[in-house]
Amino acid sequence: MPHLSQRVKDTFASPFRKFLPLAQQAKDRGTQVIHLNIGQPDFLMPKGSLDGIADDYLKFIPYGEAEGQMPLRNAWCSYYEKFGVRISQEELIITCGASEGIYFTLMAIADAGDEIIVPEPFYANYNGFCQMAGVNIVSLFSSIEDGFPIPDIESFEKAIGPRTKGILLSNPNNPSGKVYNLQMLKSLASLVKKYNLFLLVDEAYSEFVYDGFEFFPALTLEGIEQNVVVIDSISKRFNACGVRVGAIASRNTDLLQHIARYSRLRLSPPMLGQTFATRALKLPESYHIHLREEFAERRAIILKRLDQLDQVLYHAPEGAFYLFVQLPIDDSDRFCAWLLTDFSYQGKTVMLSPGTGFYATPGKGKNEVRIAYILEGNMLEQAMDCLENALATYPGIQKNKAYSMV
Amino acid sequence: MPHLSQRVKDTFASPFRKFLPLAQQAKDRGTQVIHLNIGQPDFLMPKGSLDGIADDYLKFIPYGEAEGQMPLRNAWCSYYEKFGVRISQEELIITCGASEGIYFTLMAIADAGDEIIVPEPFYANYNGFCQMAGVNIVSLFSSIEDGFPIPDIESFEKAIGPRTKGILLSNPNNPSGKVYNLQMLKSLASLVKKYNLFLLVDEAYSEFVYDGFEFFPALTLEGIEQNVVVIDSISKRFNACGVRVGAIASRNTDLLQHIARYSRLRLSPPMLGQTFATRALKLPESYHIHLREEFAERRAIILKRLDQLDQVLYHAPEGAFYLFVQLPIDDSDRFCAWLLTDFSYQGKTVMLSPGTGFYATPGKGKNEVRIAYILEGNMLEQAMDCLENALATYPGIQKNKAYSMV
Repeated sequence: MPHLSQRVKDTFASPFRKFLPLAQQAKDRGTQVIHLNIGQPDFLMPKGSLDGIADDYLKFIPYGEAEGQMPLRNAWCSYYEKFGVRISQEELIITCGASEGIYFTLMAIADAGDEIIVPEPFYANYNGFCQMAGVNIVSLFSSIEDGFPIPDIESFEKAIGPRTKGILLSNPNNPSGKVYNLQMLKSLASLVKKYNLFLLVDEAYSEFVYDGFEFFPALTLEGIEQNVVVIDSISKRFNACGVRVGAIASRNTDLLQHIARYSRLRLSPPMLGQTFATRALKLPESYHIHLREEFAERRAIILKRLDQLDQVLYHAPEGAFYLFVQLPIDDSDRFCAWLLTDFSYQGKTVMLSPGTGFYATPGKGKNEVRIAYILEGNMLEQAMDCLENALATYPGIQKNKAYSMV
Repeated sequence: MPHLSQRVKDTFASPFRKFLPLAQQAKDRGTQVIHLNIGQPDFLMPKGSLDGIADDYLKFIPYGEAEGQMPLRNAWCSYYEKFGVRISQEELIITCGASEGIYFTLMAIADAGDEIIVPEPFYANYNGFCQMAGVNIVSLFSSIEDGFPIPDIESFEKAIGPRTKGILLSNPNNPSGKVYNLQMLKSLASLVKKYNLFLLVDEAYSEFVYDGFEFFPALTLEGIEQNVVVIDSISKRFNACGVRVGAIASRNTDLLQHIARYSRLRLSPPMLGQTFATRALKLPESYHIHLREEFAERRAIILKRLDQLDQVLYHAPEGAFYLFVQLPIDDSDRFCAWLLTDFSYQGKTVMLSPGTGFYATPGKGKNEVRIAYILEGNMLEQAMDCLENALATYPGIQKNKAYSMV
């Protein structure tokens, strides 16, 4: 048999999906699996947003423009105005999901062996995209014990080396739920300007902030127009993760024109998804007001249930729809697998994402899991019943550490 | 301004789209641009294949399986049976177009600095995908003067070195229109087996062969089940280039499971396109019989018109829907740009793909262009009127070489 490449053998296993075969085996045994492992909310997508789409494509479904269809680019720019962001259509290109946006941007700002600074925990698949691009992550650790603070600006500055090309954040942060305040964003702006770095901000969750926290778009930061690159997505915003439509927005049009070389190689983003996205972005704001209220209720359910558990450490998320939780367990990969292979409670189990994948630092996250509070209240209650029972019966339980709720 | 990566600056400019800004300028001047530069046929997609799709997604559009939806994988396997190919659903994964299929496969079989053997001329964007993956193309040149023969097996063998990981073909070949005969495929099978290489075959045009030529699927070759990887696409087959749905098919399930690591990073292929594809693949064969007849007529129109031109060299394509043509011009990039910037005939011009991008060997293809015969007869006639007039007025005409029609 011909040999595979070393890089594919070394490729990061996405924590969101690596246990899907085990989930399937559980389902085959008749166990209902409640999926809190992936950020796919069960809310309704905007009503009617696919109605009559067949009429838009009566003849054929052609390649679109590599950088995305102009009506969509214009709609996205208009949508940004509600966040106080004014950009023109040349300053935004469409990608096949935020995934492609991150990968293309990494490829365009860093050569193999270059470095990107990323505060951890971070969206796990950054690990994989950086690996594919040959870019090294320099991670800035923050601990769950301290409440996942955003690293201070001195830590960012100390991490900068001769091969550093940029800083990558998600705001609101997935998985910690932290939201960057304006002060911190301005400090980061000064830093990237001083060192001539890119500031990449993944804003896929910008609609979802709670408790009076405020989201500040990176594109409103002044004086670093050539440094800021925003990665965005339709997925979470409109409950349409499967359309695979994202965007890269930047006032650095030279960068976008270079990224478009990659876009042209793969010819076109998906057309049907772009039609959906164009319609969705034109909806009134009431859609997201409603979603935020619903997510706040779901968040309250999970927080209340976690409160009732012993030896569990977590922080109320300020944004996004995830909780990163420390549990009294030996190994989160083992625990998450065990939930699918050996556990059920009243015919159900819960699927979670093990914490290890959200760190670049080896050994971190071993007793942490990510919970996505993306299902309706009754399902969340059942999932938490499962978790509660699992923690009472899991053979790898570790009760020796002192835990406290923060 | 922060610096871009060297690799993005060096990235291959896709010949299909690099002159689109010039085409837009021509349109802005009121010139009608007839697009024969890209393989987007104007035939009707399968009737009704989008009807009621909104009913399939009443609630939301979720992430699908990273490797593609099972109904689509099953439909594709069933469709292959008409070619005599029997594979199971584990032997086929869905990609975001053949583009992603080629890129993921390259990443999985070759590390940076490894080599892939590709007969030239070849589908131009292979150049870009190999660059992105850091894989070097070792090209086997065949000349238009000789009729673009498939290189002999000794040439393939001589090109194999210590870093060779595979051979990449398109069958039928884009742009030359050559179809691999069974004898040659069997020789290649013996060769890849002897040297333990992968044989990647891009079969996006398998439905389109003419004049009694026959297409032999690589998956029917015996004894090299672990070596053969087929890259496929819905785009050309169903006039739906914009759905972005392709596939990688191989009996080497270890390879596919490794490629799926990349699939999982980007989470899901586009769902709406997958729904379309699942329906389309179940259509009766009459759809393609009709398409082949229509393409044969279009091919006849172009061949007849080329016959009437002086100093033009070409070969009747055996398959696909392209003609690679040598013209009495100084520089095909200059000529294709000039068609858009300086030329019009009766208010129209034609957009073609310059030949240089279809070679890895520097300097090759300088007086060659690719013509896609993808529009209806009347438009093709008008496009050929433009080409005829352009060759009579282009300032960079080169009449010194002896041309003959083959």
